[in-house]
Amino acid sequence: MKLNIALLAGDGIGPEVIDQAVKVCDAIAKKYDHDISWKPALTGAAAIDAVGDPYPDETHEICANSDAVLFGAIGHPRFDNDPSAKVRPEQGLLKMRQKLGLFANVRPTFTFPSLIDKSPLKRDRIEGTDLIILRELTGGVYFGERGRKDNGDTAFDTMTYQRFEIERLAKKGFEMALKRSKKLCCVDKANVLESSRLWRETVQRMEKDYPDVQVTYEFIDAVAMRLIQWPKGYDVIITANLFGDILTDEASVISGSMGLMPSSSVGNKVSLYEPIHGSYPQAAGKDIANPLATVLSAAMLFEDLNLTEEAQAIRDVVNKSLAQNIVTEDLSEGQKAYKTSEVGDWLAQNI
Amino acid sequence: MKLNIALLAGDGIGPEVIDQAVKVCDAIAKKYDHDISWKPALTGAAAIDAVGDPYPDETHEICANSDAVLFGAIGHPRFDNDPSAKVRPEQGLLKMRQKLGLFANVRPTFTFPSLIDKSPLKRDRIEGTDLIILRELTGGVYFGERGRKDNGDTAFDTMTYQRFEIERLAKKGFEMALKRSKKLCCVDKANVLESSRLWRETVQRMEKDYPDVQVTYEFIDAVAMRLIQWPKGYDVIITANLFGDILTDEASVISGSMGLMPSSSVGNKVSLYEPIHGSYPQAAGKDIANPLATVLSAAMLFEDLNLTEEAQAIRDVVNKSLAQNIVTEDLSEGQKAYKTSEVGDWLAQNI
Ligand SMILES: CC(C)[C@H](C(=O)O)[C@@H](O)C(=O)O
Ligand SMILES: CC(C)[C@H](C(=O)O)[C@@H](O)C(=O)O
Repeated sequence: MKLNIALLAGDGIGPEVIDQAVKVCDAIAKKYDHDISWKPALTGAAAIDAVGDPYPDETHEICANSDAVLFGAIGHPRFDNDPSAKVRPEQGLLKMRQKLGLFANVRPTFTFPSLIDKSPLKRDRIEGTDLIILRELTGGVYFGERGRKDNGDTAFDTMTYQRFEIERLAKKGFEMALKRSKKLCCVDKANVLESSRLWRETVQRMEKDYPDVQVTYEFIDAVAMRLIQWPKGYDVIITANLFGDILTDEASVISGSMGLMPSSSVGNKVSLYEPIHGSYPQAAGKDIANPLATVLSAAMLFEDLNLTEEAQAIRDVVNKSLAQNIVTEDLSEGQKAYKTSEVGDWLAQNI
Repeated sequence: MKLNIALLAGDGIGPEVIDQAVKVCDAIAKKYDHDISWKPALTGAAAIDAVGDPYPDETHEICANSDAVLFGAIGHPRFDNDPSAKVRPEQGLLKMRQKLGLFANVRPTFTFPSLIDKSPLKRDRIEGTDLIILRELTGGVYFGERGRKDNGDTAFDTMTYQRFEIERLAKKGFEMALKRSKKLCCVDKANVLESSRLWRETVQRMEKDYPDVQVTYEFIDAVAMRLIQWPKGYDVIITANLFGDILTDEASVISGSMGLMPSSSVGNKVSLYEPIHGSYPQAAGKDIANPLATVLSAAMLFEDLNLTEEAQAIRDVVNKSLAQNIVTEDLSEGQKAYKTSEVGDWLAQNI
């Protein structure tokens, strides 16, 4: 198969972890006889420095014309405490999501047998956790009108949802649930928010088309609690952009290592694959960051292209590296810590 | 001291747990020679049934003219999955917060030595946790304009903040931090929301008035994660209404028992004291609910009236009951479970 993959390394540890995923994908291509053509493009703080735009048009062209996008991370501390900065790396992320129409962020949460004791949660609470949070990614308060009034003394943001936005996200949720444990949980704040009432109403109407899926409706505050108390109670969760932002990060605690959690952002044409850990600037350039979340995101990429064997081969080699302690310092627990690049080399050689 | 306390039992287990707090307060009054006059009033589903309004004017009069309000819980399942219900118990809660001007919800999170192993989190992560979340309670998306457009196919909610709303909440936060570990964390989503940028800007300007307080700014998604990973990293957290709703419930997981966590909602004139556990309808009328969160809320009430000894006497007797296993079934672990009313009697007798 011939594949064009846009390669957006981004900021911080992005370039380092992306390099390892490329090694692994190239090894997969060799083994399974695919032809991957990588299309690197600028994004984030790196793109601001180069061309003054965190998601330049050239980058968009490359992404829009690719079969998939592999993404590292965006964000630089120099922008964080400067409310006056006009152009910010995160704007690139939001612009990219919107222009590529990446409406569904898919974040699996699961545990690795060999790492379960690294979780702040007790083993019996989390062993066997296998849930997916489906976060709406191109609507809600992220993209509503916002501004100031009263000489800057009043600020507002608008949380808006249209029925079709909820429907297309929920459809994905129902379909995923059908392939899994057939449980769908719609998370909202319908006891307060009108947009949440539209979510609930829309999902309720869709229930009859999926008689095999058991649907529940829970409030975001309750879920923020129950997700930690008993994560095994959830299968597929669908939720709005802001709630999903909070819940997916919260859920990442369960597995005990953010360095392992992959994600995809699904669009109608192109989809994007990225680790959830962010740019982690403190570690940038040190060859110490854990590349596994990015490598596992590449596995999601192959899975979505129906290259199931290839995806499984990646997951298998990751499990093998964990079992043999070929790990970066975040997981090495006083044993030998491998460099980011060494882990990538090992994975590629063992494909 | 002469005290008028409005008594809002509310729904579900509200009346049962309130009864026990009254017993304890009466015992305190006797011991310390106070004269408490209880003013019962209707609220929640109970008030809808009686007079069609979840926070009737008579109730408001009673609250507004009291020295403090002791509140049970609001909410009834019969309203939960009915998006068409015109009058809902929760509206009473919101109306009450607004009309009484309860702008700051104070939720301490701490652990009880004897209960620490009930937490889903590991002991070393939580032992010694002592943080307070200060949630803005009368602004934000809870009270902004909301509605439908496009024949109901578009719904919107408005998240609005005015500078003075942030200032008065932050002032409380700074003052609390000064009395504690002098660490204040402002939690927002300033990388996306304009209202969050106003929060950050306002708190930044106030920093110079509190040179001894160390202030940090963190994003809500990161805090949803770090609060579970390392709760001891936080002292006082200030945040907007919706974020506080989510974080306070999430934080309640740390202690291992929602049945123990008290709260206060502070206004300019009158303040309100309530357990955080909600109406727990499944247990209503069974005399099995844990009354300690309500009893500890009463301790906060005395504390705020500068009756420090009285507050400490309540906390001491609660600790004694826990140490001697005079506990309801949620905490009894196969040992004898006491009834709600029995725990209340025991506490009152041991004051
Ligand atoms: C950087 C930020 C704008 C972004 C978001 O809030 O969506 C991030 O937190 C994420 O979850 O990808
Ligand atoms: C019942 C609901 C409206 C309320 C809120 O969201 O404020 C509750 O969750 C709370 O935290 O007191």
